[in-house]
Amino acid sequence: MIIDWKKIALEKYNEVKNHIYENKLNINLKVILVWNNPDSIRYIRQKEKWASFCNIWFELIHLEEETTQGKLVEIIEKLNNDSETTWYLVQSPLPRHIDIDEVIEKISPLKDVDGFHQENYWKLAIWKNSMKACTPFWIMELLDAYDIDPEWKNVTIIWRSNIVWKPLALMMINRGATVTVCNSKTKNLNYFTKTCDILISATWRPQMIKKDMIWEDSIVIDVWFTVLDGKIYGDCDFESITKNWNMITPVPWWVWPMTVAMIMKNLIRAYEIQN
Amino acid sequence: MIIDWKKIALEKYNEVKNHIYENKLNINLKVILVWNNPDSIRYIRQKEKWASFCNIWFELIHLEEETTQGKLVEIIEKLNNDSETTWYLVQSPLPRHIDIDEVIEKISPLKDVDGFHQENYWKLAIWKNSMKACTPFWIMELLDAYDIDPEWKNVTIIWRSNIVWKPLALMMINRGATVTVCNSKTKNLNYFTKTCDILISATWRPQMIKKDMIWEDSIVIDVWFTVLDGKIYGDCDFESITKNWNMITPVPWWVWPMTVAMIMKNLIRAYEIQN
Repeated sequence: MIIDWKKIALEKYNEVKNHIYENKLNINLKVILVWNNPDSIRYIRQKEKWASFCNIWFELIHLEEETTQGKLVEIIEKLNNDSETTWYLVQSPLPRHIDIDEVIEKISPLKDVDGFHQENYWKLAIWKNSMKACTPFWIMELLDAYDIDPEWKNVTIIWRSNIVWKPLALMMINRGATVTVCNSKTKNLNYFTKTCDILISATWRPQMIKKDMIWEDSIVIDVWFTVLDGKIYGDCDFESITKNWNMITPVPWWVWPMTVAMIMKNLIRAYEIQN
Repeated sequence: MIIDWKKIALEKYNEVKNHIYENKLNINLKVILVWNNPDSIRYIRQKEKWASFCNIWFELIHLEEETTQGKLVEIIEKLNNDSETTWYLVQSPLPRHIDIDEVIEKISPLKDVDGFHQENYWKLAIWKNSMKACTPFWIMELLDAYDIDPEWKNVTIIWRSNIVWKPLALMMINRGATVTVCNSKTKNLNYFTKTCDILISATWRPQMIKKDMIWEDSIVIDVWFTVLDGKIYGDCDFESITKNWNMITPVPWWVWPMTVAMIMKNLIRAYEIQN
């Protein structure tokens, strides 16, 4: 069975749109772009498109690639203090000369719709209401949409980044799952992929996960993609796995609408906290 | 082989004592006690004893059990602003009418020698230098003292509390381990205990972990204890396991000196940050 996350994303957008309409909310979203890479621009276009769909006023703050750390922090502090700016985010990835951790530290936790700030990170860890890191957030919402309860389940996560996979592990632990986090130094990966109920992979290694590495009833969430010779590949060998009985997400181009939908959900949450 | 953490704790105290002596540091530690339970008092006596050993000036702030949340927060804020108070901690557990998360939020991250504050939590998660939660901290130091590198190892943690086991999972992940966090809703616990290289247990269920649940070369760290009819039991059936070939910590009464040693190490770290 193929998980239809395009349909679920659309449901989420409609929820947000209706909420904004019914409560007559005046919400804006600013996106700071420093690094001019094509993927970031494509991603920002998605944010603009869906913000407009939800009646959220959108603005792009496009900075030069040479922008210094000091200048970026200055702009962030201005936005923190600007009552006209309800929420904003800094588009990652950032150029190499920028220290992303310092940037995240400077963002006001109340305006942090990406859910990256330490206060939101900590609240997510201890299971308090907060703005949630958007990728783990949509994974949980996707499972909820299919009535899949993580409790009593074995969950294997392949990867361990700060702003995505560690928060996902924490969310899964909070929901009662038994969670294993694997990385490039896992000595027996097959062992953990084969025995879990839910597998979430973001290795950037195209088609690394084959059918024989997965239990046939497992749920496979393939989060990232690699482009090779103009063709998009996920981490999982989709064709061979779908011939089996697993539930699987399609090649993850469509990760973006779900992530963007979660930004919109965080906007609503941020509005509730501030008003 | 039995891990000699009494010896290692003593080494850590001597390190701290020498560091304070050589650098002529003037360090104090205050402990706020709200709940008058015998375990807390015994624990605080350990803190006092070892602070004195290291030449750290110690003060107990003993509050009434009926102290309100508001009053406790007021005292914390006073300590935050008091330049004479270098560091302090609030002894847990707290009475039921106190919201521990709010208390932690109020402690200045610079004076937080327990490593519980959100800033220290986040820095630990993203592997930046910080004051570290003391129980996970000593587990890492214990492994280091025996030259056991978590990289490439499978680590199983049984339990999932906010201030101890989630930070431990994050520290282990940062060090390259493949980490599984189990809880009371793990459907096949034996499976995860039997296949790991390092097992860390804090279930409070006396002697729950038997010899046949563990691989004979694994390292077993038994963190908590239960007192039954005046006798102390760990989570692990120590007798049967030590007859095997495993490395194991003894029945964990001696967890305290290690935890307290880590508070002292955090004090040194806190001093470096502030000066």
